[in-house]
Amino acid sequence: MILQLICPDRPALVSELSGWVAVNGGNILHADHHTDVGAGLFLSRIEFGIEGFGLPREAIAPAVNALADRLGGQAQLHFSDEIPRVAIFASKQSHCLLDLLWRTRSGELPMQVPLVIANHSQLEPLCREFGVCFECVPMTPASKPEAEQTMLDLLAEHRIELVVLAKYMQVLSGAFLERFSTVINIHHSFLPAFKGAQPYHRAWDRGVKVIGATAHYVTEDLDDGPIIEQTIEHVNHRDEVEDLIRKGRDTERLALARALRLHLCRQVMVYRGRTAVFA
Amino acid sequence: MILQLICPDRPALVSELSGWVAVNGGNILHADHHTDVGAGLFLSRIEFGIEGFGLPREAIAPAVNALADRLGGQAQLHFSDEIPRVAIFASKQSHCLLDLLWRTRSGELPMQVPLVIANHSQLEPLCREFGVCFECVPMTPASKPEAEQTMLDLLAEHRIELVVLAKYMQVLSGAFLERFSTVINIHHSFLPAFKGAQPYHRAWDRGVKVIGATAHYVTEDLDDGPIIEQTIEHVNHRDEVEDLIRKGRDTERLALARALRLHLCRQVMVYRGRTAVFA
Amino acid sequence: MILQLICPDRPALVSELSGWVAVNGGNILHADHHTDVGAGLFLSRIEFGIEGFGLPREAIAPAVNALADRLGGQAQLHFSDEIPRVAIFASKQSHCLLDLLWRTRSGELPMQVPLVIANHSQLEPLCREFGVCFECVPMTPASKPEAEQTMLDLLAEHRIELVVLAKYMQVLSGAFLERFSTVINIHHSFLPAFKGAQPYHRAWDRGVKVIGATAHYVTEDLDDGPIIEQTIEHVNHRDEVEDLIRKGRDTERLALARALRLHLCRQVMVYRGRTAVFA
Amino acid sequence: MILQLICPDRPALVSELSGWVAVNGGNILHADHHTDVGAGLFLSRIEFGIEGFGLPREAIAPAVNALADRLGGQAQLHFSDEIPRVAIFASKQSHCLLDLLWRTRSGELPMQVPLVIANHSQLEPLCREFGVCFECVPMTPASKPEAEQTMLDLLAEHRIELVVLAKYMQVLSGAFLERFSTVINIHHSFLPAFKGAQPYHRAWDRGVKVIGATAHYVTEDLDDGPIIEQTIEHVNHRDEVEDLIRKGRDTERLALARALRLHLCRQVMVYRGRTAVFA
Repeated sequence: MILQLICPDRPALVSELSGWVAVNGGNILHADHHTDVGAGLFLSRIEFGIEGFGLPREAIAPAVNALADRLGGQAQLHFSDEIPRVAIFASKQSHCLLDLLWRTRSGELPMQVPLVIANHSQLEPLCREFGVCFECVPMTPASKPEAEQTMLDLLAEHRIELVVLAKYMQVLSGAFLERFSTVINIHHSFLPAFKGAQPYHRAWDRGVKVIGATAHYVTEDLDDGPIIEQTIEHVNHRDEVEDLIRKGRDTERLALARALRLHLCRQVMVYRGRTAVFA
Repeated sequence: MILQLICPDRPALVSELSGWVAVNGGNILHADHHTDVGAGLFLSRIEFGIEGFGLPREAIAPAVNALADRLGGQAQLHFSDEIPRVAIFASKQSHCLLDLLWRTRSGELPMQVPLVIANHSQLEPLCREFGVCFECVPMTPASKPEAEQTMLDLLAEHRIELVVLAKYMQVLSGAFLERFSTVINIHHSFLPAFKGAQPYHRAWDRGVKVIGATAHYVTEDLDDGPIIEQTIEHVNHRDEVEDLIRKGRDTERLALARALRLHLCRQVMVYRGRTAVFA
Repeated sequence: MILQLICPDRPALVSELSGWVAVNGGNILHADHHTDVGAGLFLSRIEFGIEGFGLPREAIAPAVNALADRLGGQAQLHFSDEIPRVAIFASKQSHCLLDLLWRTRSGELPMQVPLVIANHSQLEPLCREFGVCFECVPMTPASKPEAEQTMLDLLAEHRIELVVLAKYMQVLSGAFLERFSTVINIHHSFLPAFKGAQPYHRAWDRGVKVIGATAHYVTEDLDDGPIIEQTIEHVNHRDEVEDLIRKGRDTERLALARALRLHLCRQVMVYRGRTAVFA
Repeated sequence: MILQLICPDRPALVSELSGWVAVNGGNILHADHHTDVGAGLFLSRIEFGIEGFGLPREAIAPAVNALADRLGGQAQLHFSDEIPRVAIFASKQSHCLLDLLWRTRSGELPMQVPLVIANHSQLEPLCREFGVCFECVPMTPASKPEAEQTMLDLLAEHRIELVVLAKYMQVLSGAFLERFSTVINIHHSFLPAFKGAQPYHRAWDRGVKVIGATAHYVTEDLDDGPIIEQTIEHVNHRDEVEDLIRKGRDTERLALARALRLHLCRQVMVYRGRTAVFA
């Protein structure tokens, strides 16, 4: 069981939280705290076993919420035996999608993937091999509202809790995000460098010596969401744009897989447009 | 104030420790814990402010020791306003020594360096520039016992708490270590690869593509002490041995400076031949 | 067309080689040379276009060999339109195999994979998905000579030019290597550290802060072959052995894929137990 | 002796260049070439010994220029025994300055530093220790034209060939650069991210997980000059702005030292706003 809490900083918070776990008979396996002094905020992540816990399972969440209320903060609770249902959005490129499906199948990512949505059909055979439902939802500027509605319906139908954009190459509208907001994206640059389209082409033009990839939560401001993970790769003058793209695939899939694992293991806390990553 | 504690694992330890801090009116700034499941050990590092602390300064250590005794463990306490006295041992090479002296002067390393000992005289001018006492203690196989005694006397005279081997290139005897045991060394390889002499020559012979440096606590078994930090550098077939040595200097001084800072900030805990680094 | 040449060093070799290309009407696209001063050897890799080349295709190899003879060296010639036939040996783990099959299908690795051999049957479905012939050749100490003979027969039948050990976990005998010698292996440590079995367990025991993977050519001396590529990954005290194994998978498949691409693009030259990598 | 040449691409250029060296009795030690296909340009760097060279020293440059003219390109020639005179511009921070002075003294950077200019006086003692002439030229918006004139006079007086901005924190005017154009700068961000002032503050605000440093040639467009080297450092939520600044110092001085060495070893070629780095 993982408890995440954010609240205004004040003395004795660690004691209060760990005392609550102890008094209920829980055993802390990992505990990590962070005080953002500038923001005056206390962030805590506590992982504890609940064998022989003093509260019945259904009473834990209300108790945690009451505790958070008393501290003027917000808590999130996660039972480790609840495996989240995740949808992957893709386009034509397979590297991130295949990587995530393989990591899921091999048990490296504690999630299930009942649904893949793409705006092109190329990745259907790959999904079939992995036994995942594939839905093609084409997207044009004109059809966007309708297409996004279709996608939202699919998410509801499959009871999806998290969407991962695995090189989806489309911008989700504010209207979409208002209705489904837990979305992780991989951007193929070292943000905030090269926001927007064709980052590798622009990186090549600028003559950089390092390229990168950024996995982040999606907000309405394109490429401005809280960053979870960034990876980099060295390049040199011998690398053409297509070499940057090729090398980039490795760093993209790594950044996305790491970020997703951190998210799924509840090691990420988001606040004020940034993340604390308890790794 | 920083409290480090190791004890057998059991439930409610975080609560007990943080409760002790809270009940005395301390405010936890950072808290980090680790359970080594295989070893059945709980490790904790708690950093807390003691303005308005309920115990007078001289009573804190006894209280902490009593707490540790009750938990069957061992505690270490460090007051942040106590700046440790550190001696640096060197030989002929200046890069690590200069780096440490500069970092000390610039406030990056919270230590004072009243003494440098070397078995050669080349580094005397450098030490004079930094206003550090330089003692040359030559070392031959025959003179070793006597030379080490001289060094131990110097350490005592200067009230040294920590020795850093900054490319000292000599092996301290078991007799020396018995009498002065807190010693950090930088070895110019990626341990356990290339233990012993001339690691860059042997790395070149083996045709490796990456070289490294390892900062570790010194034990009687040469190059086998607990590792604090390791850094690496890429090399290729164009690099001759002297290029490995040159590139190595950068990675050596970085590993050593990082390890030393971690040690000085009490972020390192040693147990069972290994370290937990709360970074 | 790629020409690789090793010969004793002497003046005017670059001129001689590039002159030979020019006089035959070839256009050099890339040229890279290295002089190993200690060994007194000159290594050269020249990539040139042969549209309008003055020699017919079948006459190029004899001409190159004559040139190499005259220089007292050895040359290798590779036509870029000849896609090598590669067999992958695996065991139970899928990560390297899947990665190589996917990179081949996506065009990132200029090779064809007509054959996968494994000593266990788990990876058969994966191979079927990729349309690759899968042969299970179980291996026990007693059956080893016979099993290796079966494997050699399969290699001959499929006209295999290169074998890649993608976590094969078996040691090929000297007898096998005498009959088929172009073999690339991935070892899950930062060689020469942790040669042999269970490197992650031993890395954990030693308390290292960085793990690595090494892709190398296979020789009879286990884990002592010429190194092509090494990658690394940071670890800390929170990582259990299974975390090292998990993190290691990413660095293993990257090292192997990079080494294989370098080999296939004829960017690797082997001499005196080491490699020059013209990247 | 190092010859760098850029010219329009056409067949037989390698042969022509290496033939010219060979016919004059030079022995090529290293040769590296690059064709920028998009730009239609051929870049070459040839390092050769001139013991027993067929041309007298003073005749080599005219001969090389004639060769370059014939190829419609431009050549640069560098005699390895000519040690360039370099001025370092600094402000208050010592880390890059000290690093460069130490590397020069230890022979790692093949240059001499007769002059340091700073707009503050703090670094004078450091320069005195290294026996380097220190000139303080204060800089205000009003005094800038006059101050820059003073600096140009100092450069002329000391016969300076290269200026290195080692955290100078002032922008050189276009007028200055018109009169002295070979300037290398270290910018404390991963360009093009965080151009301009206070990059670490802005990196912290954005919540990035990696910071960087960029060494580049200075052009009138601030932070837009050709990039020579980029280095990076990982950061996390525990790092405050001052930690980014501290960690940044290590990556800054490394990027600057590497870039400077590449420049001094004539391994960098600039064209079309970018660099080819023959490393």
